[in-house]
Amino acid sequence: MMTREFYPPAAFFIDDIVKNALQEDFGHGWDVTSQIVIPEKTHAKVQMTARERLPVAGLICALSVIKHIDPQLTYIIHKNDGDIAEKNTSIMDISGSARSIMAAERVILNFVGHLSGIALKTAKSVAAVKHTKAKIVCTRKTLPNLRALQKYAVRLGGGFTHRSGVDDCILIKDNHIAVCGGIEKAVQRARSSLGHTTKIEVECDHLGQVEEALKARADIIMLDNMSPADLRLAVETIDGRAISEASGGITEKTIKDIAETGVDMISIGALTHSAAYADVAFDFLELN
Amino acid sequence: MMTREFYPPAAFFIDDIVKNALQEDFGHGWDVTSQIVIPEKTHAKVQMTARERLPVAGLICALSVIKHIDPQLTYIIHKNDGDIAEKNTSIMDISGSARSIMAAERVILNFVGHLSGIALKTAKSVAAVKHTKAKIVCTRKTLPNLRALQKYAVRLGGGFTHRSGVDDCILIKDNHIAVCGGIEKAVQRARSSLGHTTKIEVECDHLGQVEEALKARADIIMLDNMSPADLRLAVETIDGRAISEASGGITEKTIKDIAETGVDMISIGALTHSAAYADVAFDFLELN
Amino acid sequence: MMTREFYPPAAFFIDDIVKNALQEDFGHGWDVTSQIVIPEKTHAKVQMTARERLPVAGLICALSVIKHIDPQLTYIIHKNDGDIAEKNTSIMDISGSARSIMAAERVILNFVGHLSGIALKTAKSVAAVKHTKAKIVCTRKTLPNLRALQKYAVRLGGGFTHRSGVDDCILIKDNHIAVCGGIEKAVQRARSSLGHTTKIEVECDHLGQVEEALKARADIIMLDNMSPADLRLAVETIDGRAISEASGGITEKTIKDIAETGVDMISIGALTHSAAYADVAFDFLELN
Amino acid sequence: MMTREFYPPAAFFIDDIVKNALQEDFGHGWDVTSQIVIPEKTHAKVQMTARERLPVAGLICALSVIKHIDPQLTYIIHKNDGDIAEKNTSIMDISGSARSIMAAERVILNFVGHLSGIALKTAKSVAAVKHTKAKIVCTRKTLPNLRALQKYAVRLGGGFTHRSGVDDCILIKDNHIAVCGGIEKAVQRARSSLGHTTKIEVECDHLGQVEEALKARADIIMLDNMSPADLRLAVETIDGRAISEASGGITEKTIKDIAETGVDMISIGALTHSAAYADVAFDFLELN
Amino acid sequence: MMTREFYPPAAFFIDDIVKNALQEDFGHGWDVTSQIVIPEKTHAKVQMTARERLPVAGLICALSVIKHIDPQLTYIIHKNDGDIAEKNTSIMDISGSARSIMAAERVILNFVGHLSGIALKTAKSVAAVKHTKAKIVCTRKTLPNLRALQKYAVRLGGGFTHRSGVDDCILIKDNHIAVCGGIEKAVQRARSSLGHTTKIEVECDHLGQVEEALKARADIIMLDNMSPADLRLAVETIDGRAISEASGGITEKTIKDIAETGVDMISIGALTHSAAYADVAFDFLELN
Amino acid sequence: MMTREFYPPAAFFIDDIVKNALQEDFGHGWDVTSQIVIPEKTHAKVQMTARERLPVAGLICALSVIKHIDPQLTYIIHKNDGDIAEKNTSIMDISGSARSIMAAERVILNFVGHLSGIALKTAKSVAAVKHTKAKIVCTRKTLPNLRALQKYAVRLGGGFTHRSGVDDCILIKDNHIAVCGGIEKAVQRARSSLGHTTKIEVECDHLGQVEEALKARADIIMLDNMSPADLRLAVETIDGRAISEASGGITEKTIKDIAETGVDMISIGALTHSAAYADVAFDFLELN
Repeated sequence: MMTREFYPPAAFFIDDIVKNALQEDFGHGWDVTSQIVIPEKTHAKVQMTARERLPVAGLICALSVIKHIDPQLTYIIHKNDGDIAEKNTSIMDISGSARSIMAAERVILNFVGHLSGIALKTAKSVAAVKHTKAKIVCTRKTLPNLRALQKYAVRLGGGFTHRSGVDDCILIKDNHIAVCGGIEKAVQRARSSLGHTTKIEVECDHLGQVEEALKARADIIMLDNMSPADLRLAVETIDGRAISEASGGITEKTIKDIAETGVDMISIGALTHSAAYADVAFDFLELN
Repeated sequence: MMTREFYPPAAFFIDDIVKNALQEDFGHGWDVTSQIVIPEKTHAKVQMTARERLPVAGLICALSVIKHIDPQLTYIIHKNDGDIAEKNTSIMDISGSARSIMAAERVILNFVGHLSGIALKTAKSVAAVKHTKAKIVCTRKTLPNLRALQKYAVRLGGGFTHRSGVDDCILIKDNHIAVCGGIEKAVQRARSSLGHTTKIEVECDHLGQVEEALKARADIIMLDNMSPADLRLAVETIDGRAISEASGGITEKTIKDIAETGVDMISIGALTHSAAYADVAFDFLELN
Repeated sequence: MMTREFYPPAAFFIDDIVKNALQEDFGHGWDVTSQIVIPEKTHAKVQMTARERLPVAGLICALSVIKHIDPQLTYIIHKNDGDIAEKNTSIMDISGSARSIMAAERVILNFVGHLSGIALKTAKSVAAVKHTKAKIVCTRKTLPNLRALQKYAVRLGGGFTHRSGVDDCILIKDNHIAVCGGIEKAVQRARSSLGHTTKIEVECDHLGQVEEALKARADIIMLDNMSPADLRLAVETIDGRAISEASGGITEKTIKDIAETGVDMISIGALTHSAAYADVAFDFLELN
Repeated sequence: MMTREFYPPAAFFIDDIVKNALQEDFGHGWDVTSQIVIPEKTHAKVQMTARERLPVAGLICALSVIKHIDPQLTYIIHKNDGDIAEKNTSIMDISGSARSIMAAERVILNFVGHLSGIALKTAKSVAAVKHTKAKIVCTRKTLPNLRALQKYAVRLGGGFTHRSGVDDCILIKDNHIAVCGGIEKAVQRARSSLGHTTKIEVECDHLGQVEEALKARADIIMLDNMSPADLRLAVETIDGRAISEASGGITEKTIKDIAETGVDMISIGALTHSAAYADVAFDFLELN
Repeated sequence: MMTREFYPPAAFFIDDIVKNALQEDFGHGWDVTSQIVIPEKTHAKVQMTARERLPVAGLICALSVIKHIDPQLTYIIHKNDGDIAEKNTSIMDISGSARSIMAAERVILNFVGHLSGIALKTAKSVAAVKHTKAKIVCTRKTLPNLRALQKYAVRLGGGFTHRSGVDDCILIKDNHIAVCGGIEKAVQRARSSLGHTTKIEVECDHLGQVEEALKARADIIMLDNMSPADLRLAVETIDGRAISEASGGITEKTIKDIAETGVDMISIGALTHSAAYADVAFDFLELN
Repeated sequence: MMTREFYPPAAFFIDDIVKNALQEDFGHGWDVTSQIVIPEKTHAKVQMTARERLPVAGLICALSVIKHIDPQLTYIIHKNDGDIAEKNTSIMDISGSARSIMAAERVILNFVGHLSGIALKTAKSVAAVKHTKAKIVCTRKTLPNLRALQKYAVRLGGGFTHRSGVDDCILIKDNHIAVCGGIEKAVQRARSSLGHTTKIEVECDHLGQVEEALKARADIIMLDNMSPADLRLAVETIDGRAISEASGGITEKTIKDIAETGVDMISIGALTHSAAYADVAFDFLELN
């Protein structure tokens, strides 16, 4: 499989997250086991093995860990972020000080295991809908302080992102509508104060609201917790005048039916808030 | 159920994590939807509802979010961290500026949903072994930058923590042993350099190593990936001379058998790296 | 004049900027003059005076400075952010420890003077085009580490914001087009990788490009450095199918003509990169 | 023109400011346009062009941006900080990844445009008084979080700095004098508590105060808002016994007259709080 | 003894240092002993006792610790920073949650013990020279990250500060002189580039250099490692035309002789780099 | 003497402390003396000289200072952390820009002087007890924000560390015992909530408590302020069933007697809170 082009967060951005993770693991400052038990000059070569087939995600974090712990470690990358690693193959080999490699091991695996798990979960959803035009997107239901990395992992798994935060897209929900006295008034209020580079999405619970949202010229219409039948009607009603997005409790069981309704987007919080770890581990090839 | 006493991370510690999470969600600085669409004086009262039965975890983060977003919000706590919230009951009611409540909503739910999910997963494991003396413990396989909170959630679910980082316990694994030329030499090396307040744990893959570890007077013996039969033998061998800890790929299916071998501790990485979100949501009680 | 509703950056966001500014001014840690020369118990009451007519901007920073320096200072706000303060009237009165007020004075004035200057400059541009439908928007040509505040000041002056950073809107410029081999290919490339909540803007230097950008269904078309005559043609061509934005070296002299071409948006870098300070000062009403 | 020696803030100091500016621009973490639209391997060579004659200021920030965004970019510096760049000449050429160069472009220009604008404004004031002994100095009226860089730009333009913050020089103003019951008492109070390495400056509004300040042996006498005639008298009175500093609303129109009064220093807040951007831009020389 | 007025670093400045110290002590986030062993509702009242007579220094840090750990603790201050606490008297009583008090205890004592130790050491030097006009000053030989607090403690003990850092005073030493080709050239070089608010000090090793430094009009002359006899000659030579400062290995044995030479200042690095802890402790008055 | 293996805090950990120390010294951003007085191209070579015999500690900080100030400085290390430097020998030679070396000098010496002072003080205590089995350990009585480095210096001097913070060992003191109603109850309470990797230490004031602590199976028994006679009895009573630790006001006079009682550990707060600076200085070998 070819490496596709992906777009990681900027290096200085990742470095901050990685440094925090190292501070968290090192606590009062040092790895007592490896530093005390392993003689200083011991050399090691390890491979980071995919113990299951997975789309690699988080290598960029692994490289930042290496830079922070010991820039003299060397490495060969066999699979980049976004590549598929087959079961029991090497993602990356790392060589150098055994102390440094052992000190870096768990934090690297915590990043790569978690992010590859998200990519893997995303890839399954993407595969389930590939016969339709629906795109899979993640949400703001992310784990605190990991959002940019989690959204990157979703992209590596073939998904797309919804808004990044509360600042970069208007999303008008039921309560906003209630306060404003209707969708049209809410959208109007948004449009009169908002910059022109920001989109407006409206959450609709039934078809009547979809009509209203179209009339208000919403850019995106979220179809929340609708049945496939209603989704189909909503898509017909929208008819390309807005982007349609199905949302709400969508699972691996229901995703196929939902995609076949013709919606443009399917958003799934579980991609980021409930993904299981992918199985990755360090195997020592040399230690002397 | 009575509120047990739990021990959260210090407030200044939680505040830092919460502030980072808010910065991550607010991006360039503001919640465009709520600030623009909701009139400034709108008042709201919401309840944070447990949509499933769960041990509450993360309320302490919710309070920090409120402090950061709008200290004038008021709240009534119905269930504290560590309490069981029944399905469809209120964990906490929050009243005040609708803008502030909406701006705080997702970040609060991201903390409480994730941490309660860990507490719930832990509670299930704890329940499965309650007829034995085994304690359930989590590991360093945590999600980056969330370790202290995740370990707190494990405690709230009835579990215990293993070491907090690489700095507060020696854990001698197969590779350390290989480099040193045996368990006894590795433990000796550790003990001669280490402070007296730090414990030494040795990972053993078979019974022969258990004997060696006992001879070296390890404080804790990790029994890695052993069958229940071998675990039972190991526990007999150890005979109270060290703490025994079963480890390695333990699942909800195997945990009961493992606990019944008589081990002191069962450590499970999945408690923290693969817990699903617990279902919590905000329900608006008033909005005017 | 009534206070309009404006939307400042979140308090925790402003607090960070203000604390940095105080650290910058306090250097090694203290205000030697006021602490040494003014006896500890001296009381003062000051008013922050607008020395010229201006739209107030930055009061929210002033309040944060007070919170950091001495939360026991009390104040009365006469004019809020967004209000017009007439020449030689009080924006805010502050009472309390003379030492604290003197220590806070310059940093408060640096924020309020700079931000009110931006609001004033924006208000002039807004007034110049008020007979048209054109909105005035600022750009990413901001002063480092002040962007969110500067954009807030533009809104207070009646303007709007363009994208907040490189992350929240696609802006395809001449060089992007050149690399991709045409506008359509560049937009296509963007759309296939991008989330659905992000808009795509294309910079056009001549009418031929406008046609291409429309065909590619760009959300926004930037009309760069065009004459009023060309702008008029471009607006006709676009005919509501995209948002039109005039850009490039627009000054107070040319803005009226440009607005009258019918463009939706006029973007001006000088609002934020070249605004002069507004004249604000502290006047001591009591000191004893 | 020869490169003079200037004294930038320390590299670790500049790196912090630059990193903040990049975080501000990258928001949720990435440059969506350049990363998505520009193929990964695209190479570019650009020159940063002075669009007007200017003293270069901020190159040191540009280098820090490059280090943060992509340390593999290469560059040739044609004009260093402090050099004069003629109109339409290159200050620096940068080569390497087109994505990196585009991601770095705006932040670099925001630093260099702002700081060169300050240097240019300073240079004009310096030129206006070069037939006198007066030195031009900036004040604490700086833009928040940019003070050290702004003061550096003033030095690059031929000016000097006043105190850096409230911690490194005593400046006794009218209110301090009022509280203490006279200049002599105020200076006395300062001198008895202060370290010997810190100077004492006294603000005087009329000649009577100048006499008092001399008597109190102030190191510097600020002559605030005095007419040229009064300034001349004050300079005669001081007669070298203290440093004289003219201050207060000095403009390009009045500066020459003021300098000719014989004052040692002329301090101007507008150098840093109201300088317009200098015109600098990136021109692409290669893109393939 | 009356409380004199002292000038602590700004509160936001101290809060940062205190928070770092708490993070350092809490490591992975919590005080395991007090939180686990002490029941949540236990109440305590303690007094912070001076176990020896000392000038109190660091109370301001103690208050910041309390604010960070538990703002509901209440306290009564018996002796403020700068007051003399007699042996076995209470400096401050603190009441509230026993857990919070125990968690705060060590960090508070570390600040107060160290800073009071510096104040005490300073007070002894000040007492030794009180019959002369010499002032005692500390230097930049401080412990990393504690400078502002250490210098504050010196002031509390009756001493004064030398420059705060490398940025706020010129100090020309032997090597600077060597490079420049003489004192006059070095001072000249400094004066031509320096702002007018910064003083120039010159280090002199013998009387010949003192003459040169006077000729160059140095503000301060450091008399480095001179004998009392030479100091006396130097003071006569200087004759009030500059501030004289004796420096270099001055101890409690030599300080009286040195002060009697008539020097203005005596600078002592050991005040800050080698002060012993003052004996302070918490005594529990109530615990229930 | 051979270089022993020591275990410094991680590089990213030290870099943060060093950067803070540099920010503290550079204040508003630059070293005015060296930058102004020394011509830019001046080259220097210096040696860092031990002015007394000392165990080197802090070289790792010196290297971080060099990295921050000027990574182009080159150096030769003659004595590493943990090595003994004889009086008037070179620890390290540094070559490169004279400005950079002078800017780095004081901060390097502040780290190395302080930490070597601790190592030296520790080495004396270690030497005094070397005929016994007692180990010397430091405590939490450290100087704020320097703990990890101070504990590292203690190890370099031949000592060991006690717990790193309040999070990594239970230490039950008199007040904890009083609240719980006895040692056994306190230990029981701890053990039931604590993870299995954390040790429990009990402070005992008399022999009766030692019995109780043994019965409660404490891991470590602190013998607080006991006479040598009582210590001897306590050690006999403990008889290897727990680690014994003598504590409380132990000085260079009493340490030998205490060690000879047979205790395992002697903890001394003064190692870190009252160590005097070791005498180190820069000597210029070349300057041109």
